Amino acid sequence: MRLRLIFRHRGVIPQALTNLTAVQGLRPLHVTPSTMADKKLFTPGPLGTSMSVKQAMLRDLGSRDVEFISLVKYIRTKLCKIAGVPQSEFTAVPMQGSGTYGVESVFQTACPRKGANVLCIENGAYGKRLGKICDVMGVKYRVLSFPENEFVDPVAVQKALKGDRSITMVAMVHCETSSGVFNPVVEVGQLVKHELPGSVFFVDAMSSFGAVPLDLMRGHVDFLVSSANKCLEGVPGFAYVIARISELNKCKGNSRSLSLDVFDQYENLEKTSQFRFTPPTHAMLAFSQALRELDSEGGVAGRSARYSENCELLKAGMKEMGFKEFLEPKHKGYIITSFRFPQHPNFNFNTFYTKLNEKDQVIYPGKVLNADCFRIGNIGHLFPADMKHLLACVREVCKDMGMPLPLT
Amino acid sequence: MRLRLIFRHRGVIPQALTNLTAVQGLRPLHVTPSTMADKKLFTPGPLGTSMSVKQAMLRDLGSRDVEFISLVKYIRTKLCKIAGVPQSEFTAVPMQGSGTYGVESVFQTACPRKGANVLCIENGAYGKRLGKICDVMGVKYRVLSFPENEFVDPVAVQKALKGDRSITMVAMVHCETSSGVFNPVVEVGQLVKHELPGSVFFVDAMSSFGAVPLDLMRGHVDFLVSSANKCLEGVPGFAYVIARISELNKCKGNSRSLSLDVFDQYENLEKTSQFRFTPPTHAMLAFSQALRELDSEGGVAGRSARYSENCELLKAGMKEMGFKEFLEPKHKGYIITSFRFPQHPNFNFNTFYTKLNEKDQVIYPGKVLNADCFRIGNIGHLFPADMKHLLACVREVCKDMGMPLPLT
Repeated sequence: MRLRLIFRHRGVIPQALTNLTAVQGLRPLHVTPSTMADKKLFTPGPLGTSMSVKQAMLRDLGSRDVEFISLVKYIRTKLCKIAGVPQSEFTAVPMQGSGTYGVESVFQTACPRKGANVLCIENGAYGKRLGKICDVMGVKYRVLSFPENEFVDPVAVQKALKGDRSITMVAMVHCETSSGVFNPVVEVGQLVKHELPGSVFFVDAMSSFGAVPLDLMRGHVDFLVSSANKCLEGVPGFAYVIARISELNKCKGNSRSLSLDVFDQYENLEKTSQFRFTPPTHAMLAFSQALRELDSEGGVAGRSARYSENCELLKAGMKEMGFKEFLEPKHKGYIITSFRFPQHPNFNFNTFYTKLNEKDQVIYPGKVLNADCFRIGNIGHLFPADMKHLLACVREVCKDMGMPLPLT
Repeated sequence: MRLRLIFRHRGVIPQALTNLTAVQGLRPLHVTPSTMADKKLFTPGPLGTSMSVKQAMLRDLGSRDVEFISLVKYIRTKLCKIAGVPQSEFTAVPMQGSGTYGVESVFQTACPRKGANVLCIENGAYGKRLGKICDVMGVKYRVLSFPENEFVDPVAVQKALKGDRSITMVAMVHCETSSGVFNPVVEVGQLVKHELPGSVFFVDAMSSFGAVPLDLMRGHVDFLVSSANKCLEGVPGFAYVIARISELNKCKGNSRSLSLDVFDQYENLEKTSQFRFTPPTHAMLAFSQALRELDSEGGVAGRSARYSENCELLKAGMKEMGFKEFLEPKHKGYIITSFRFPQHPNFNFNTFYTKLNEKDQVIYPGKVLNADCFRIGNIGHLFPADMKHLLACVREVCKDMGMPLPLT
């Protein structure tokens, strides 16, 4: 059996595609049909991307080629625009690896070898990871904790800052992916700059950047990190740092890791327009296409609107079935939604997960400590129709499991 | 204008492909025709891959999905087989990032926080980088240098080992990508184990693994690193460590980097079959396809044969035109070949490079310090016909530049 794909393009027949037809098209792809039917990923990542984003990877670019160099420039410029910061004051630095590599790279780069003292603010697993990274690095740090179902409280942060004038960096998470809480980054950043004007303010915006408006200027953010395969909907393969140039320029020689040195990567990109080490060219091609699709959708506002609509549909549908959210209504987060396990005796998360999986709907286990929850992501290449289909599947699974709706 | 691509597959119409036709196929790919004609990469990396390897990325896999978990297992098992080591004694650990991230991850993991003392053996840029990594990490190290156009000399290594009994690790490069020299890993490894039985032997086999036979058992190799986008012909996005389990098990808590901790990654993979942080799912899918294509080609022996043939054709053709190799004939390396700049007054490397580039042939500048060279890679998705075409292009470019052949 054969399937015809029709590609549109603008002009001569692309070499890569004629090669495909002539040489490679007749080679079996070594995938079985069952594995080709992609599941819908309602997860915090890796998450689904558009087919056109993936198609952008059907090429091999040389990293010294003028085309790749302009691709890198485009990505770096665009990231600053999405962040809403002037390129005269900020720069965007892609770093190979996962999002956590990006987060660690900021600690490696912005913590001096001696005298660093980090205040890590946490209300969930990703906030805790900030402290874990400092711990492994041997950097002095302190953790300021808040309940997993509450916002970070700026008043408590202010108190902590007043209590320790030796703090050199304050680090926090924007959207805590383990629960879905949006934290008050701007308020905290203003306090940090007021209380400790010489310190660095670092925001892990992994699961919010590009879909949740954040005023970096008003929030005095010095370093922000996110990753290619979150709300910008590229494929995983690299993270990026949005850095205040004046702060980054203070960081030469700080890093105890060659690979994770953001300053060194920045300096090399500026001088030579090249990565220091082999870049993930395919993931960068995909990302460039993803950025164009963000534009087509109306930028951060457009993406935020789609995710919000996804989330509203999900919440309303789950509520109708009697599922209870982990967070109270005051939390307006629309990236990922945590639901408590239903009390019904027939509920078993593994069965629930597996039955949804069999219907090609992939949800995620919970990641909060103080409650049994599961999570449903509203991000990635998901549209209202996908959320409605997921809800229909949840209904069927509940019926299958002998859990009459609405749950009580 | 429309182009039809025909995919063969085995059974029902794959969901991803019907989606493509129905929804995404009509969206322009945002690439201009000129950018679609992929150039041939005669480089050390990123290098060219087959279209079927790239096609394997046209999917989004959830990282907790049973399919992804079996993909990771397949890759880890296969890497040990390619390395020719038993899985009872060795393990393969994929690490996100470029090859250098993989190299650093071994230093971070296998150097204790106190008392580490590394002997870095170098005869080129990548050997020097071993020392650079130690330097940035603040690990005590010493560099044993050899000329760029010579092999590492085991006698000199033995002398260095006898002279410093506090050495805890010896690190060297198998194929020095800056020149193309193959170093005598087995001989050095045997000396290391004889002189300092308690020390760790670490080999950077970035540009040789999978295409240059190496007996890890006879060479007493404890850690070996390579990357997805070298001789195994996957796309860039991760590196992998082949580690002796008994040595890796001594490494808990050593790493000063959370991201680059091979022990932690290994432990997590063994316990949960999951990466610790978002894996590059697309690059892993491509790699799995690449491993199948390695099998089809006859494994390491088959790939070695193709690259050797590429290299022989290149050397003979270049010699005929009067180009001189940087290395003497005793060097049998077939991964990458360095040529000295011709003495002809019309020769200018940038012009030569650009004119070849305009013919879609991408070569690489030299990376040796003591001679003006350029490099031509024989690896990646390159076949004898590609080498012949490159040679024809070199002829044309020489003519264009007013350099009569053969050069004298």
